[in-house]
Amino acid sequence: MEETVQHYRLTLEYDGTKFAGYQVQPQQRTVQGVLQRALTKMAKGTPVHIDGSGRTDSGVHALGQVVSFDYPGNIPPQNMLMGLNSMMPLDILIKDVQYADPDFHARYSAKGKRYMYRVALGKYTDPFKRLYTGHYAYKVDVTRIQVALQDLIGTHDFTSFAASGGVIEDKVRTIYDATCTYDAANNELIMEFYGNGFLYNMVRILVATALEIGNGRRDQHDFIRLFAVKDRQQARGTAPASGLYLKEVYY
Amino acid sequence: MEETVQHYRLTLEYDGTKFAGYQVQPQQRTVQGVLQRALTKMAKGTPVHIDGSGRTDSGVHALGQVVSFDYPGNIPPQNMLMGLNSMMPLDILIKDVQYADPDFHARYSAKGKRYMYRVALGKYTDPFKRLYTGHYAYKVDVTRIQVALQDLIGTHDFTSFAASGGVIEDKVRTIYDATCTYDAANNELIMEFYGNGFLYNMVRILVATALEIGNGRRDQHDFIRLFAVKDRQQARGTAPASGLYLKEVYY
Repeated sequence: MEETVQHYRLTLEYDGTKFAGYQVQPQQRTVQGVLQRALTKMAKGTPVHIDGSGRTDSGVHALGQVVSFDYPGNIPPQNMLMGLNSMMPLDILIKDVQYADPDFHARYSAKGKRYMYRVALGKYTDPFKRLYTGHYAYKVDVTRIQVALQDLIGTHDFTSFAASGGVIEDKVRTIYDATCTYDAANNELIMEFYGNGFLYNMVRILVATALEIGNGRRDQHDFIRLFAVKDRQQARGTAPASGLYLKEVYY
Repeated sequence: MEETVQHYRLTLEYDGTKFAGYQVQPQQRTVQGVLQRALTKMAKGTPVHIDGSGRTDSGVHALGQVVSFDYPGNIPPQNMLMGLNSMMPLDILIKDVQYADPDFHARYSAKGKRYMYRVALGKYTDPFKRLYTGHYAYKVDVTRIQVALQDLIGTHDFTSFAASGGVIEDKVRTIYDATCTYDAANNELIMEFYGNGFLYNMVRILVATALEIGNGRRDQHDFIRLFAVKDRQQARGTAPASGLYLKEVYY
């Protein structure tokens, strides 16, 4: 008799510090690898393959990564949640498990994503934040950043903000919202980017450019110029992975 | 001509996660070792030995560790601060450097110390807090802990709360203040202990016992009973190093 196959949607949080990114790679500790091994063990050895909403790089964190998969059997979502969490290392937390329609796909069904970037200000890097923030030691005018981020909203060609080496031809993406707030208690800038999709390293390049605008090294509306020139060399900087969080995936 | 020798007092913060504790040990990365190597390099190879206010174990953090040392030369404190920070790894931050009287000794001159312990509540360990908190998954009554901590204040024999293996004979210490507050925003308990000195693992054993009192597994005034029995076996638990911070040293 054939086993039932049940489709699931799972939301997880992870500290990316000790992972070689989300996606499986030979000989490397990855989020996908750890989760697939646990599910395969739960399925008594039947291999389970998961599809993530997208990759995150080494050191990049997630507060709401979403994955989908077929499981060879039917385990109530709450039981799967508890079972998986008991098998997870301390740097991964399964936050939610739900039954999903068979055609739900964490990546292809996604309508949008929200990323957050934390920038610690001040002269020195705080030892307790070094793994969880980027750091900017120079003066920044938050209002200048807020004004600049408005230029991102809408549909633009992000060629200037895509890391070279990407294979995706179409560099046009739509940003629905881009904000910057100052968290006085922690002396941090929190930037958030909500859009229909993001190119490789795009958020980290946008953050580095926004900080230079905030510092006055770039013109207030340099994002508009950079959209036009379509030249990755002109955006230059890439903020470190440690400050980046995949916050939410929208379906 | 003889070099000047100048005595210094230095305050530092560190994330203890990747150190085998404060004190120098062969083949291990320690806070004392990293700092002495930097000072010795600054002194062009003349060995500099530092005295810390006390050891912290592997994984234990410091917000205000204090060290004192003789330096073979006279560098203005502000220059030494900047020079040392440029040589420090990101998990150590030098917060303050001052000239000190020749008889100042970070350990022997200390009049008291304050430790903080962070306990994350909730069912699961938060991936982003695992290195910076202990975790207690059971119910706790904060008021019960607050009442219990009052029993610690004063001068007591802490034999029941000293890790076996310690070589110190006199287990009598004075606690000036012991508090517990609930941080609702982070769902954490913050306990603080201010006293004239602490035995090996004493704070971590006090925290583990306080949590069991808060949970109701121990009587409200079990600390008083434990002082009387002078038996380490009866306190049992030791809260993990990750939640412990040397917050301040008083002179």
